[in-house]
Amino acid sequence: MIELVTAASNTTLKRLRSLHEKKYRQREGLFLAEGLRICTEALDSGWVPEILLFAEGRSDQPLIRRLLHATLDGSGGKPGRVIETTPALLAKITGKANPQLVVAAYAPRTRSLERLQPGARMLVAEQLRDPGNLGTLLRACDATAASALILLDACADPTSVEAVRASMGACFTVPCVMASSAAFVQWKQTRGIRLLGAALDPRAGDYRAADYTAPVLLMVGNEAHGLPAALRDACDDLVIMPMRGRADSLNVAMAGTLLLYEALHAQERQAATLSQPGPNPPATAQSG
Amino acid sequence: MIELVTAASNTTLKRLRSLHEKKYRQREGLFLAEGLRICTEALDSGWVPEILLFAEGRSDQPLIRRLLHATLDGSGGKPGRVIETTPALLAKITGKANPQLVVAAYAPRTRSLERLQPGARMLVAEQLRDPGNLGTLLRACDATAASALILLDACADPTSVEAVRASMGACFTVPCVMASSAAFVQWKQTRGIRLLGAALDPRAGDYRAADYTAPVLLMVGNEAHGLPAALRDACDDLVIMPMRGRADSLNVAMAGTLLLYEALHAQERQAATLSQPGPNPPATAQSG
Repeated sequence: MIELVTAASNTTLKRLRSLHEKKYRQREGLFLAEGLRICTEALDSGWVPEILLFAEGRSDQPLIRRLLHATLDGSGGKPGRVIETTPALLAKITGKANPQLVVAAYAPRTRSLERLQPGARMLVAEQLRDPGNLGTLLRACDATAASALILLDACADPTSVEAVRASMGACFTVPCVMASSAAFVQWKQTRGIRLLGAALDPRAGDYRAADYTAPVLLMVGNEAHGLPAALRDACDDLVIMPMRGRADSLNVAMAGTLLLYEALHAQERQAATLSQPGPNPPATAQSG
Repeated sequence: MIELVTAASNTTLKRLRSLHEKKYRQREGLFLAEGLRICTEALDSGWVPEILLFAEGRSDQPLIRRLLHATLDGSGGKPGRVIETTPALLAKITGKANPQLVVAAYAPRTRSLERLQPGARMLVAEQLRDPGNLGTLLRACDATAASALILLDACADPTSVEAVRASMGACFTVPCVMASSAAFVQWKQTRGIRLLGAALDPRAGDYRAADYTAPVLLMVGNEAHGLPAALRDACDDLVIMPMRGRADSLNVAMAGTLLLYEALHAQERQAATLSQPGPNPPATAQSG
């Protein structure tokens, strides 16, 4: 059943507007995503809205129709709610002048470090405070097929409207894990995964010369303070990007993106080398 | 002379607050930068404030003292104004909860394409709308010693508070040039400089395989629409970054950063090769 809502005072609309604030996201167990493209990509990645809002008179748009049916069918047998409303009320929920055709509320998925399956490359960010940087890093993780973003200690909320927006849908494809620094270091040591940290540190070498053999954890630090000493000490290798200007550091999202692409390139080169028999196989292999 | 201002109704403070809006920046011929570190870096790069504000009782802080004297001496013989005020009024100008020790207003420097001296690598952005992305790209230009950021058509204002903040002082070290697409294409052709554009285009090749021989122009497009067809056609080469996830594009600041670093690395490799005499100099050189 599609509900029609045209009053700004509607309780559900008020609840959805409140999701701009972290305490209400936690209370409701919901977060917002906006836009037909991102909500469709979310559906393709297995995310079904708990509540779907769409612009009145647009239920025949094929993608909206698909989202609408998926929401009413629900995930895991629990049907969601579908609300048809005015563009003005949609704009009020997103807080943007240009209203989107759809806005949807989803239940967040929390993953623990213990249950994370290590992939070839994973990004780790410590005390990342800016939700825009967080979203941009999720997008870079998606682009480089990194298997997770691990957020240490007090980071921005990956389900905030700003982070979801900046991620351009990558929040639905890249698993986000939250952990304390201490738990993370213990996990990394138990699993025996190499940790490579970007830091202004006398021990740091050029990021292009590092060993990115899979699996590898790539770590960046807080916007203002970088990585704390304890986390730098926990790294197997410290790296730095060449700085040829006046400033001594890059924006954290830029540093993370450069590391992720360097790891992707290095790992793809290694895979290509391994899969191609060389022109001269090692002598021992021939004589064995 | 240091003026003491403690009233929020002060005309100069009101003027400075108005600089958050583009029309007042244009009317006043001033833009804002905040923070002792950035204002000191600006001074080191030859930028003297027209108006300097600092937190009351802090005139003995060595860096503030230096900024204060530089402002009173003025640049080009025209002395600036120095205002001592309360942390609360400073916070009101920046609009941030944590007040800075200093806030300064500078006269923007406009550069024309005609007078731009081409460097080894320059970044070009077309219809870049987000001031945060603009600032981040200025920071990437500084980090890779790119000689200019060229902004085509309707871009965000590089002197906006958000762009200056995101640039972390790079707005004082990287020249910004504004031009129309048409004027830019004509300039590039007259000067004979290679133009390399990042675009989702069937003609685009892997960005690591491109020719970055100096001088080179690296171009990125609008956040939502990428580069328009006319600008893609004006490129000598089109490139793309590997996309291994669900999304088909990177954030424009990330794409620009990857291109700038790739150009820096390629040009530094070329310079190293040229400066080292090879083990076997060319035969013609020996026989000539």
